[in-house]
Amino acid sequence: MRLGALEAGGTKMVCSIGDEAGHVFSRVSYPTLTPAETMPHLISFFQNEGIEALGVASFGPVDLHKGSKTYGYITSTPKPGWMDYPFLPELRAALNVPCGFDTDVNAAAIAEHRMGAAKGLSSCLYVTVGTGIGGGIVAENKIVHGLTHPEFGHFWLRPHPDDPTPHGFCPFHDGCLEGMANGPAIMKRWGKPAQELPPDHPAWALESYYLAQMCATAVVVLSPEKIILGGGVMQQEHLFPLVRKKTQKMLNGYVRTPAILDDIDNYIVAPGLGINSGVTGALLLAAEALEK
Amino acid sequence: MRLGALEAGGTKMVCSIGDEAGHVFSRVSYPTLTPAETMPHLISFFQNEGIEALGVASFGPVDLHKGSKTYGYITSTPKPGWMDYPFLPELRAALNVPCGFDTDVNAAAIAEHRMGAAKGLSSCLYVTVGTGIGGGIVAENKIVHGLTHPEFGHFWLRPHPDDPTPHGFCPFHDGCLEGMANGPAIMKRWGKPAQELPPDHPAWALESYYLAQMCATAVVVLSPEKIILGGGVMQQEHLFPLVRKKTQKMLNGYVRTPAILDDIDNYIVAPGLGINSGVTGALLLAAEALEK
Repeated sequence: MRLGALEAGGTKMVCSIGDEAGHVFSRVSYPTLTPAETMPHLISFFQNEGIEALGVASFGPVDLHKGSKTYGYITSTPKPGWMDYPFLPELRAALNVPCGFDTDVNAAAIAEHRMGAAKGLSSCLYVTVGTGIGGGIVAENKIVHGLTHPEFGHFWLRPHPDDPTPHGFCPFHDGCLEGMANGPAIMKRWGKPAQELPPDHPAWALESYYLAQMCATAVVVLSPEKIILGGGVMQQEHLFPLVRKKTQKMLNGYVRTPAILDDIDNYIVAPGLGINSGVTGALLLAAEALEK
Repeated sequence: MRLGALEAGGTKMVCSIGDEAGHVFSRVSYPTLTPAETMPHLISFFQNEGIEALGVASFGPVDLHKGSKTYGYITSTPKPGWMDYPFLPELRAALNVPCGFDTDVNAAAIAEHRMGAAKGLSSCLYVTVGTGIGGGIVAENKIVHGLTHPEFGHFWLRPHPDDPTPHGFCPFHDGCLEGMANGPAIMKRWGKPAQELPPDHPAWALESYYLAQMCATAVVVLSPEKIILGGGVMQQEHLFPLVRKKTQKMLNGYVRTPAILDDIDNYIVAPGLGINSGVTGALLLAAEALEK
């Protein structure tokens, strides 16, 4: 198959050509401006490549209800021009090929479940920790949509007593995960970007505390067989051992399973597909659309 | 079908006879003492009734992995005699009929999804708020097990600034949902059992704040199509409007869907099966075991 994959982010649109096994043949990216400015680039790229199907892994929130009149629309984003924009319908009309559509993190979760760190398991949680925080869930071998789709970055955290900014920085929620622990929160709290803070900076003790609380919450709420942490902040690899140790400490032996008690190094892990979870997920969405 | 349903709780064991449509013909209960004292009652009751299959909705934690050597065991309970007890194997050996097995809250979630408040939807969350707090999740029409099963009562809450006991009372976790908001927490915090506190007591403002945080967390993490709140504490019906209003306030318009913005009275609801969610779920587990 010759498939198109569109990773639609708030900053850039990454267009790739690949196949159903996740091989990527070529990749270009365009800045995310208004739809009027950006869409023609995306459409002409995929038109010229002669794809059989397209998979879109989109920033959200999006409408994922297949019966809905606004299926495939971006819904309530603050990005100029994209609010209530018929993203999928416009792409489908222009390209005239089968199109699959999901959120960026759902696509990554699908890919990690199918051929990455959670291959062979029935469930996983994929979380990206970067400019935003988002999560995709596979449960009983199915991607979880539900009412809309998870907005995993926006549950409440219990603040650490030493946090100088215990309310975080989310404009919507007092002390939610994203507002406490995304990249910009680290920057605002400590006055420097994350990548400039050395591994012994107190920022990392706090960051790992919040990410461990996130993992422990995921364990008790969702019981995933694997927790996969990706995104820019997780490029700081020294975070992983801290997060694992604190997750165990917070759970405090309550969930008695070898995965957590004895083998947490293989339970909370980096993406098996590295930085390619998203594009692979988009290719899988395209393949699925083509098969239907 | 003539089916047995065992609701196995930490305080009592409720044995019922019914059918696959959830009709209950008879019901008796026995106190939960040690297995040596209690099991003979359960076994002789079901033996005398001539059941075709048994469904067990059990207190936990339990082993739900069908391939496991300890499938159907109670695992790490503090209840004397029940730790690592082969609950399902003992029942099956004595009764010699097909047996279904799940947690009490999973059984209730299955029943509410099949024929209760979430009938016709693809997902729901059932939470019991009583002596403990537990939750069962149906996602994409399947009950969620995953690594073990959810321990929904044990995620961390952000304490209210006016809470006189902001650490709660869970012996395992500093400030988890169960330790902050179950029946015994209300009793310990205010010195009186919940049912003796009048509706204008500050206990209810705080309780509804925590239950709203629970609902808002469920919305962003799981995106269920319905949240169903049962259990002893929810018999205080004045809690429902408080919880709904505060859930909307906490989400703060972030999840833009009519279910939450416009119709929350039908989104956060009491069990459609009343106090029969558990027994109905156990009957459905029995019917499923028989069909296999």
